Amino acid sequence: MSGRLSFGAGSCNTIMAFIQGWILDGLFMDKQEIINAIEQIRRIVGQMGLDVSGTTRDRYARSTSLRPTRPLGVAYPTTVEQVQGLARTASQFRLALHPVSRGRNWGYGDATAPTHDQLILDLSRMNRIVEAHERSAYVVIEPGVSQGELYDYLRDRDIPLCLDCTGAGRDASLVGNALERGFGHTPYSDHFRNLCGLQVVLADGRILETGMCRFLGARTGHVYPHGLGPSLDGLFAQSNLGIVTRAGLWLMPRPEAFCTCFVRTTRDEDLASIVDRVARLRLHGVIRSAVHIGNDFRVMAARMRYPWGRAGNRTPLPDELRSRLRHEMAIGRWNMAAGLYGDVRTVRAAKRTLQITLRPLRVMMIDDRKLAFAKGLGHLLGSLSWGRRLNQLIAAMEPTYRLLKGEPVDEPLHGAAWRVRGPDDARPRDPRDIHAGLLWVSPVLPATGEAAREVVNIVTPIYARHQFEPLLSFTFVNDRALVCVCQISFDVRENAESNDAQRCYHEISESLRKSGFFPYRTHSAISGFCEPCAARERDQFADRSSVFQEVAEQIKGALDPAGTISPRQ
Amino acid sequence: MSGRLSFGAGSCNTIMAFIQGWILDGLFMDKQEIINAIEQIRRIVGQMGLDVSGTTRDRYARSTSLRPTRPLGVAYPTTVEQVQGLARTASQFRLALHPVSRGRNWGYGDATAPTHDQLILDLSRMNRIVEAHERSAYVVIEPGVSQGELYDYLRDRDIPLCLDCTGAGRDASLVGNALERGFGHTPYSDHFRNLCGLQVVLADGRILETGMCRFLGARTGHVYPHGLGPSLDGLFAQSNLGIVTRAGLWLMPRPEAFCTCFVRTTRDEDLASIVDRVARLRLHGVIRSAVHIGNDFRVMAARMRYPWGRAGNRTPLPDELRSRLRHEMAIGRWNMAAGLYGDVRTVRAAKRTLQITLRPLRVMMIDDRKLAFAKGLGHLLGSLSWGRRLNQLIAAMEPTYRLLKGEPVDEPLHGAAWRVRGPDDARPRDPRDIHAGLLWVSPVLPATGEAAREVVNIVTPIYARHQFEPLLSFTFVNDRALVCVCQISFDVRENAESNDAQRCYHEISESLRKSGFFPYRTHSAISGFCEPCAARERDQFADRSSVFQEVAEQIKGALDPAGTISPRQ
Repeated sequence: MSGRLSFGAGSCNTIMAFIQGWILDGLFMDKQEIINAIEQIRRIVGQMGLDVSGTTRDRYARSTSLRPTRPLGVAYPTTVEQVQGLARTASQFRLALHPVSRGRNWGYGDATAPTHDQLILDLSRMNRIVEAHERSAYVVIEPGVSQGELYDYLRDRDIPLCLDCTGAGRDASLVGNALERGFGHTPYSDHFRNLCGLQVVLADGRILETGMCRFLGARTGHVYPHGLGPSLDGLFAQSNLGIVTRAGLWLMPRPEAFCTCFVRTTRDEDLASIVDRVARLRLHGVIRSAVHIGNDFRVMAARMRYPWGRAGNRTPLPDELRSRLRHEMAIGRWNMAAGLYGDVRTVRAAKRTLQITLRPLRVMMIDDRKLAFAKGLGHLLGSLSWGRRLNQLIAAMEPTYRLLKGEPVDEPLHGAAWRVRGPDDARPRDPRDIHAGLLWVSPVLPATGEAAREVVNIVTPIYARHQFEPLLSFTFVNDRALVCVCQISFDVRENAESNDAQRCYHEISESLRKSGFFPYRTHSAISGFCEPCAARERDQFADRSSVFQEVAEQIKGALDPAGTISPRQ
Repeated sequence: MSGRLSFGAGSCNTIMAFIQGWILDGLFMDKQEIINAIEQIRRIVGQMGLDVSGTTRDRYARSTSLRPTRPLGVAYPTTVEQVQGLARTASQFRLALHPVSRGRNWGYGDATAPTHDQLILDLSRMNRIVEAHERSAYVVIEPGVSQGELYDYLRDRDIPLCLDCTGAGRDASLVGNALERGFGHTPYSDHFRNLCGLQVVLADGRILETGMCRFLGARTGHVYPHGLGPSLDGLFAQSNLGIVTRAGLWLMPRPEAFCTCFVRTTRDEDLASIVDRVARLRLHGVIRSAVHIGNDFRVMAARMRYPWGRAGNRTPLPDELRSRLRHEMAIGRWNMAAGLYGDVRTVRAAKRTLQITLRPLRVMMIDDRKLAFAKGLGHLLGSLSWGRRLNQLIAAMEPTYRLLKGEPVDEPLHGAAWRVRGPDDARPRDPRDIHAGLLWVSPVLPATGEAAREVVNIVTPIYARHQFEPLLSFTFVNDRALVCVCQISFDVRENAESNDAQRCYHEISESLRKSGFFPYRTHSAISGFCEPCAARERDQFADRSSVFQEVAEQIKGALDPAGTISPRQ
């Protein structure tokens, strides 16, 4: 039989172990069917395109969250035809397929499927940059293209287009993040709204092209998103209705002038006033970028791990140490960062308006020239206390500066390691490598000072009760709404802390929802939690009525009747 | 039986005639079923809520296009519960329902259904302004709310929010236009993208709430559009999948500073250069408004009818007369209008950048002060030739100025009457009242000068061949795409001209599609055309593959299996 399947000897052993595993899981009627499924998948993706080894299954079962799911194996298609074939095969053999772009969905499920024993469709080898259109300022890319890859591509060819990056690091997928409705820092921060023209493989292997792309010869597929007739693009956001294999993505043309605006506050209560003033500036079009406002912990975490020693191994971080660290690291109680982009004149005008509007807060305006000057000065005066302070300030601001400029950086990702024990020498790009635990509750709130204050007041005591630090940030995701990312950091090896994290997560989610603040995004696998928690989680999403859920299921039933793509149960 | 139905005598006659009509149309098995259907509908909407009189059916059968369809009757629900009831009744009796917000879909089907004998659901009596949220700058409105009504409402209460209007006049629905993906003039010109949170009645009477609105107690229903999970909003644009009965609509806060920018060119070839320069300004965020560029005919038509006398009854308009009219009316070959909105500083900076970028074209910057001054001057010097010219200039610009400022005006609608015969004394708000014929081909094209020139070169000879004037306008519908509205004006009473218009329409559509320019919007009833034309029209929309159409039909099948809402055949 192995001859027929033409496996090498090593691979054959793997396959036999694999078959055992599948049989134990009760997935197939008989051995022959398994052989057939594997054979068919291998025929599609080739020998190297399917990995069912225990090591790989374990590696893909790692997660920054809790109780991750273990997959059946991992397929690595390289073309849309292979994805079509895999979808058809999966439907035929009633296998569950879970597509991931690059599996860097940190804190929201990473590369794990909603349930155990799904076949992961890892699209990271589909990483072609199909087109970069300088004049109309867009690229057409496959889901495997990472932030770092596209950044390097544009830089190496001197194409004057800027990325809008998230803090997920250089290795994270652009398309994957956009489909999960991630957001970045520039005026192009609403990633989903900057997609234009999708190619989607449906569960039965058909290829759907959205918007104008569906018309043969259309010249507007990547410049006009709506198409003619109903728009289907929204169906593929945060959903399991199809596998996106290609997307047009709008990029910002490199601005003539660029300037960042940093504000650090000393008082907690300044948050509300910043939010209200920035909201006005955004609504009036003076600021078009996302605007992030992070608290002290959030900024600290990007630059250090929990100071176990200085805190005498106690958690949460004592107030007195907290303010000492703020001072040492030149961090504000709240830290706002915004970018201004445009021609020299309008950027200059916006700077002035911003300074006046945010008065009496001290606004630091940094551009390339000022940053270079400050760095030179810091280098020169590094031995003096004033110089050291300057260097701290630069260290605090530079990663954000680069993000605002469209450069993917790994620093924000280090924040995931806040509570990780052990030596802080490795700065890996994958938080799973250092056992970083990460849970995010991400409520949307109206962009008003009161609402921001209310969210802080809801979550802070819950964090304290569970002995965590509130790592909070607020982001203007449009002119009218903020997303608050409430981060819970833990060490996945620490059982007690992990359980506390989970309880803290649920309590925060529940309290926020009770106050009307529902999340913009949630964990891909609610089932990743323990059953009572998962049930509570599901209950909390009880709608005003069940119609939305019903309609979503009717559409799922129409497009994927066998439940092939990422079934939830 | 009439007792049981409790109709008045007059109404009874109407009903009997109506029943006859329905029976003749072969719609029902027997008389009793008709009685039952009518009784049930009347029970839902009341005596005054259903009109099946011949007069009304004829009135709703009028259209600015060709061969309009005649409805079965018109129902006027006033609440969402009534709409639910009507949807259920229609499904039960297999009646086709065609919802219209206010039926002002000029040139794209007006209030007519795709086929004959559908029951029009006229939502104009659902015209509540449910909420006006000044701080978060949105309103929640029902589909019957017109541009004029909302404008007056905000003005009377001094709520500092601005509308983004289309040229469809004060009576046109805001929600209806947004659902058809209409566009206006301000930075909020993409009407569909400014909807946030829809209430939709499905064919079976269920109420679907989209985005965050689906969650009980959510405080972000009208500030964050995406919701959690797949987004269903796009399904209800240009579609027959549901009946939108309420919508959140984002409005622009009244800007601190406002200025319009007008450019008139003397040369035809300036179009390409304007498009290229404005595209750069839009991509760099200097201009955020829609930017319209109309040709001479388009501007003329808004102010006069075809000069039959001076043209010696010949068509198309002789070149020499065309340029004479341009001169007399102070109209450019191409006429650009854009608005600048923001705080005083950024508007000032943008003005300067715009002037420099559009050099050597003469840019006129008009604000409230300048306009008032010019009007005073024109009034004073109206007897001199210079003063008359100034008055012409003001007359040409003022309606656009007001539109850019967010005021709904009726002038652009007068352009529909360009080819109407007879005295030009009536300026009705409804082009059907004066037999205005109107067909619009509205291709999307990349926002580049070449593409704009190419479209002009494609359509101009076709217009000439059919003896029509090319009434053209280009609008930046986003930073990367233009919509060119190619208007064909005719008098619906003139048979030969009407037939020519239809042929011209199809030839233009076909040629544009062959060159890759597909429309952003099309006529609600392709069946409104003669059969060979309709068939050709359908063929031209042949997709790259049939998958988009299939998927749309699968979703229709799932949500409206009986085909109750606006069936196409």
